[in-house]
Amino acid sequence: MSQSNLPSRYEAIRTQKLNIDMTRGKPCNAQLDLAADLMTCVTNADAMVADGIDIRNYGAMDGIAEAKTLFAEYLEVATDEIIIGSNSSLSLMYDTLLRAMLFGVVDSPVAWCKLPEVKFLCPVPGYDRHFSICEHLGIKMIPIAMNADGPDMDQIERLVAEDDSIKGMWSVPKYSNPSGITYSPEVVARLAKMRCKANDFRIIWDNAYTVHHLSDTPDYLANLLADCKAAGNPERPIIIGSTAKVSLAGSSVAMIGGSKRNIDAIKKQMGVQTIGADKVNQLRHVRFFKNMAGIEAHMRKHAAILQPKFAVVQAVLAQELGGVMANGQAIATWSNPNGGYFVSLNTQPGKAKRVIEMAAAVGVKLTPAGSTSPYKVDPADTNIRLAPSFPSIPHIRTAMEVTALCVKLATLE
Amino acid sequence: MSQSNLPSRYEAIRTQKLNIDMTRGKPCNAQLDLAADLMTCVTNADAMVADGIDIRNYGAMDGIAEAKTLFAEYLEVATDEIIIGSNSSLSLMYDTLLRAMLFGVVDSPVAWCKLPEVKFLCPVPGYDRHFSICEHLGIKMIPIAMNADGPDMDQIERLVAEDDSIKGMWSVPKYSNPSGITYSPEVVARLAKMRCKANDFRIIWDNAYTVHHLSDTPDYLANLLADCKAAGNPERPIIIGSTAKVSLAGSSVAMIGGSKRNIDAIKKQMGVQTIGADKVNQLRHVRFFKNMAGIEAHMRKHAAILQPKFAVVQAVLAQELGGVMANGQAIATWSNPNGGYFVSLNTQPGKAKRVIEMAAAVGVKLTPAGSTSPYKVDPADTNIRLAPSFPSIPHIRTAMEVTALCVKLATLE
Repeated sequence: MSQSNLPSRYEAIRTQKLNIDMTRGKPCNAQLDLAADLMTCVTNADAMVADGIDIRNYGAMDGIAEAKTLFAEYLEVATDEIIIGSNSSLSLMYDTLLRAMLFGVVDSPVAWCKLPEVKFLCPVPGYDRHFSICEHLGIKMIPIAMNADGPDMDQIERLVAEDDSIKGMWSVPKYSNPSGITYSPEVVARLAKMRCKANDFRIIWDNAYTVHHLSDTPDYLANLLADCKAAGNPERPIIIGSTAKVSLAGSSVAMIGGSKRNIDAIKKQMGVQTIGADKVNQLRHVRFFKNMAGIEAHMRKHAAILQPKFAVVQAVLAQELGGVMANGQAIATWSNPNGGYFVSLNTQPGKAKRVIEMAAAVGVKLTPAGSTSPYKVDPADTNIRLAPSFPSIPHIRTAMEVTALCVKLATLE
Repeated sequence: MSQSNLPSRYEAIRTQKLNIDMTRGKPCNAQLDLAADLMTCVTNADAMVADGIDIRNYGAMDGIAEAKTLFAEYLEVATDEIIIGSNSSLSLMYDTLLRAMLFGVVDSPVAWCKLPEVKFLCPVPGYDRHFSICEHLGIKMIPIAMNADGPDMDQIERLVAEDDSIKGMWSVPKYSNPSGITYSPEVVARLAKMRCKANDFRIIWDNAYTVHHLSDTPDYLANLLADCKAAGNPERPIIIGSTAKVSLAGSSVAMIGGSKRNIDAIKKQMGVQTIGADKVNQLRHVRFFKNMAGIEAHMRKHAAILQPKFAVVQAVLAQELGGVMANGQAIATWSNPNGGYFVSLNTQPGKAKRVIEMAAAVGVKLTPAGSTSPYKVDPADTNIRLAPSFPSIPHIRTAMEVTALCVKLATLE
């Protein structure tokens, strides 16, 4: 790599007073506009739905039958293996762990908060909000390396077999946040079968991007619940889904699935907490999408908006950083995901934080350094999460040019 | 009281195969129809609101500014003393106590779950779902007698002064569930001023019926937060509100208010739990009601529907049970509330459960015996909660005739 004119290019960018935000996996306006009709597609005349439920009144704590039918297919569970939640899948996960701390889960010998230590496995890089929940609840996080086919199963199997304070594991199994990796069928099967010393071990299967393809040859994710049932561990998975990036980010429907025994136990606890989620909004989703084919057709419209944005990221990174070496190593590597919301960029060790700082100094906000690691500390300081969904294509191009320039400058420092 | 022909009247009713449900404070269809326009009053064109917030996207975890302005007035707090929650005020209360158990509240020396015992004061008769939360969390409930002006303050002041394991108190301070009582200004002032041994004592001020008048001369409730600030106890109240019985029962907006210090602490915790409540639905409420005058005008329409229903309850009870004595005592007494959703009927001791059983046996479902007491046990077995909002007027008349008959029969047994 030559450093000719890099500093002057950087100074020239500073004069442009950029203000581009690539920090969050937020849908852009064009994506949100796709769901315009969702907002008004249910009227007062539609009040009565299946089972004599009035969607405007109390009742159906676990969701209306129509929503359970649609989203059971979405989560690949049975209609008695699902609860329709409010607009935030994060709440479903947080509440699951909070209840586990206070009461334990099905088969827990004791409430987790009564134990001297509770640990969770955290594939890294991962989703910052998962890690925040653990930090908030005092659950110790153990980082797990990510391979091309999912988390390092050798490491996981070894750890869970010997340590009964390891009570669970986070996962975004499809188009993982941020690496874009989808767990292979073999990884899913091993997660289902592995022997856990804690018999109340839970996999939080946050399938946030299950229909969020960026390619015409989407990834395939095996059904963890089916594998767990076959392996005699039906209570192991807690499956989470959401339409946050299907319909509207703040007005979506989230859902929790799992074995009937798990779901019945959760329903019993939720019945004390809530009257149930907004049923009008549930019907809006059913009315608007109709069925899984409707959701898939809708997601093709999302993909048509997102594909060019992700293509720009790939094009600029390839052009600016492809084959560029320093100290005998590539100065950066990056993912090219088949779906999801992120591109994961890895610098040489010790450079990610500096790149993010330098980009911020000229008006390009990237996800804060360390966000993809437990406790917000990336020990190797290499990972940068790029979120190209929200900005415009020209902004993405500029942001990636700036990012690439900062990678070069930081590597040379 | 003469028992002439009572058993034969009861048997005659059995042949009618009635099916009337008076168990729950559910709005009726005509009430829900009042909010018909709420369901479609926000369209995709309304996406951008104050502070550059897109209501369809992530952001504004604690609510949109417009909703905070409206509902701060509704709760009688400042706009930085409120969080707009989802559709369930029950969740706000449950989550408040769950967080208190795991982490304590502002000023807690220790998380409540670390204490050998946590107790809550429970004015009786009260709201069954409050009591269920305590039972679920293992919080010991201490019943407090209700007087005509609110809970027995002498008893409360004595208890909280001497026992630091008493961490809080439930209340429905206006048109109380089920007694209809509104706490007097003196009671509110004493609650604000009383010396509590636990310096993290909290009053859950579930002001569920604040605008739910049934009379043109509504009750006045003093502002507990203002009184608490004046008394130097600003963190004492946790104020809860909801539009569940203003707009739509299952698709409403709930809110939590209190001192800025309390609210800031709750926001910090909620930020780990949730992306925030549905902002489209918040804007629907602001758009539909506009302001407090709009809410008050809307509630007059509710009152026009509910007043005749409550009047039938009073008329039948007065006609059938007024002045009827047994063993030198009135066989029943009942409330005549100025607002809210319930009439509280008291039988002679040991008769309530039997009345409810007898009514059920001929097709009139009343709220289960004991529901208004902690642990679902009414020690005197006298209280019956009547919920006349949902059934039609002819059904209410029949149900009350049956109830009155059952009171007579049970008293004679």
